[in-house]
Amino acid sequence: MEGEPTLQLRVFDLNCWAIRYLSKRRQERVQLIGDTLRREGFDLVLLQEVWSEQDYSDLKVKLGGCYPFSHYFRSGVIGSGLCVFSRFPILDTLLYQYSLNGYPYMLQHGDWFCGKSVGLSRGRAGASMGVLASRPLFPPSSCQLHAEYCREKDAYLPHRLVQAWELAQFIRHTSKAADVVVLGGDLNMHPEDVGIRLLRGWTGLRDAFAEATRFEGCEDGCTLVPNNCFTVNSELLPFPLGIRIDYILYKAVSSFTVKCEELKTTTGTAPGTDIPFSDHEAVMATLHIRRQGQAAGDTLATAEPTLADVVTEARTEVGVGLRAARRQRYSAGRMAVLALRLLLLQAAAVLGALAGLAAEQPFPKLSFSLLAFFALGVLLLATGLHLFHTMEVKMLQGTEEQMRMALRALQERP
Amino acid sequence: MEGEPTLQLRVFDLNCWAIRYLSKRRQERVQLIGDTLRREGFDLVLLQEVWSEQDYSDLKVKLGGCYPFSHYFRSGVIGSGLCVFSRFPILDTLLYQYSLNGYPYMLQHGDWFCGKSVGLSRGRAGASMGVLASRPLFPPSSCQLHAEYCREKDAYLPHRLVQAWELAQFIRHTSKAADVVVLGGDLNMHPEDVGIRLLRGWTGLRDAFAEATRFEGCEDGCTLVPNNCFTVNSELLPFPLGIRIDYILYKAVSSFTVKCEELKTTTGTAPGTDIPFSDHEAVMATLHIRRQGQAAGDTLATAEPTLADVVTEARTEVGVGLRAARRQRYSAGRMAVLALRLLLLQAAAVLGALAGLAAEQPFPKLSFSLLAFFALGVLLLATGLHLFHTMEVKMLQGTEEQMRMALRALQERP
Repeated sequence: MEGEPTLQLRVFDLNCWAIRYLSKRRQERVQLIGDTLRREGFDLVLLQEVWSEQDYSDLKVKLGGCYPFSHYFRSGVIGSGLCVFSRFPILDTLLYQYSLNGYPYMLQHGDWFCGKSVGLSRGRAGASMGVLASRPLFPPSSCQLHAEYCREKDAYLPHRLVQAWELAQFIRHTSKAADVVVLGGDLNMHPEDVGIRLLRGWTGLRDAFAEATRFEGCEDGCTLVPNNCFTVNSELLPFPLGIRIDYILYKAVSSFTVKCEELKTTTGTAPGTDIPFSDHEAVMATLHIRRQGQAAGDTLATAEPTLADVVTEARTEVGVGLRAARRQRYSAGRMAVLALRLLLLQAAAVLGALAGLAAEQPFPKLSFSLLAFFALGVLLLATGLHLFHTMEVKMLQGTEEQMRMALRALQERP
Repeated sequence: MEGEPTLQLRVFDLNCWAIRYLSKRRQERVQLIGDTLRREGFDLVLLQEVWSEQDYSDLKVKLGGCYPFSHYFRSGVIGSGLCVFSRFPILDTLLYQYSLNGYPYMLQHGDWFCGKSVGLSRGRAGASMGVLASRPLFPPSSCQLHAEYCREKDAYLPHRLVQAWELAQFIRHTSKAADVVVLGGDLNMHPEDVGIRLLRGWTGLRDAFAEATRFEGCEDGCTLVPNNCFTVNSELLPFPLGIRIDYILYKAVSSFTVKCEELKTTTGTAPGTDIPFSDHEAVMATLHIRRQGQAAGDTLATAEPTLADVVTEARTEVGVGLRAARRQRYSAGRMAVLALRLLLLQAAAVLGALAGLAAEQPFPKLSFSLLAFFALGVLLLATGLHLFHTMEVKMLQGTEEQMRMALRALQERP
């Protein structure tokens, strides 16, 4: 950096919505994304929801010339869907999986099966950089986008807060190794939501949209807009302008400053075409990174009393989730016990029949074995659920305790 | 640290083997551990296999006076079993779960259900410290301890290497935030194993046993010894002295130096009693931490050509595991397809019977529904296995690629 006062870093972030067999016009859109990225020549591209490794490989081949470095984060059954393309060398990567990610039985939301992670790549572009891509602080469920009464009853909020907290902790623990941290992702939270305030407050990350000197794109920086032909408009009814849930966040860690010169979003269609890249809008930021005299120190973005309020608010919500998880654990356990009792009762009946009691009546073998299989199925399912909710309780407890520890540290600080 | 040239840090590490209902004389031993820790007054206590949260709570109450700070890492269904007690404030914690941890169907090893994590606490004791407790780089299976032919056929080796790699990566990415890093744990690997060489080489961690000025304890620093009345001696037959699988590793990150003055192990029984703390021996290190003039830089312990050899060796093993996982994924997939075909065949037969074909013969309802349930069971199980091995393949692939990236970085370095 010496002798070269400012490094300009152009960052592109997009939730690609590239689910094989499910996403509309996927291949066409992935090709379009690749063409645009090659033409525009960003420095850093953070993509989410690239669920097919083939799509990543195609992009890698196409972008090899201008983005010689890339990484696809593998995880879970389906994958994390996260990938990074970079003009600068990627030196190292690390994947962190969130401990909670919704419910396996909420198949329609599908979150449990995928996307439970944040990928960190470490690169060097003058300043050393920690680059994170995350998606989702789930769910992409319609509930979140619905009327306020539904947002208030949002059963996923505690999980989302655990993820926001874990993401913040992961950034705090890993960011010291970099001069500059850039996080791009579909965080599935509105800017004023407690999760975003927690993430920003606890890490000191700045919101490129709020800080940008120039802005161009959808009103209020929205990234899920009614204009986009792939969004389900009924879900956006309470938000006529759309909502902002995709972010580029950044901070300088050591003796650097970062400024967001310009922020852009696409506006329903990709530039120069008639279809959008995805059902989300892309976010593009131009960051100016400059070395300054003394080290900046690890400042928290929010004044500390406010931060304490945010942590307290988040902790209260996690506590609500903890009580709900305990109730569900109890219900599942009770169901398992009932199924076990039914099985034991049946076993007793079989033994009785074998011993020749009630020999005058024919033993109803078929209905009996069907009932036994049913009871066995319920037993297995309920036991699985009980274990799952036990795990959920543990993670929520753990997060609540960490938050308590954080609050104590905040209060004790001079 | 200024004006106080050397900080002495006494570290205690023990795999407590405190499994409810399974471990022999558990309560007595936990009490004994608590009494000893209170009497000896270490600075830092890293415990593994404290599976019961009640045991942790009891220890916490007992040790509150001399170790006012502590943390229990919650994870999974059973928990991580990891906890930390400290004389110095614990400011922050983070739990990282390994992505691979054995096979859910190897119930006798039980690894899949627990212990898949490393816990990081950040504290301040003059120098800021990153303190890690990890267990296990699994398995504690007898296989590992058996004769060489078995160690050579060790089917778990790829998973263990993935864990060693993830642990090393986690340490590399988080250690910059500390002046000194201390890792204590039952790593389930012999000192000369490729996993340990990888971990040490890739992080620059030093082995307290190898570096200690004074040593006192079991010969060769062994921590699983025939002398201990809880060890299964038949498992140690090929190793008459025992084996060393519990470690205290450390490194200085910034402008500090760390020296291990003294290392001790228990020798089959706890000091002053007739029973051991656990089936493992405790490891106790006295570290001297001193601030030095200039920053040390992040040195790798091993000369880089050697390190490249170690990474290559590890990568080869991961490749072997990858091929095995692909074969298992294929077998499980084929089994699922066969079960599905059987179900479809049955459905066709039922439809045929309903349509009045073969009406002259009575339809064998009972055996038919039993067969259907059997096929359904196999289908579910095989699908589950297929998904599990798909995940395994992904994680092994991911690790292999990261290792390739590391090798490239090592080779390109001037």
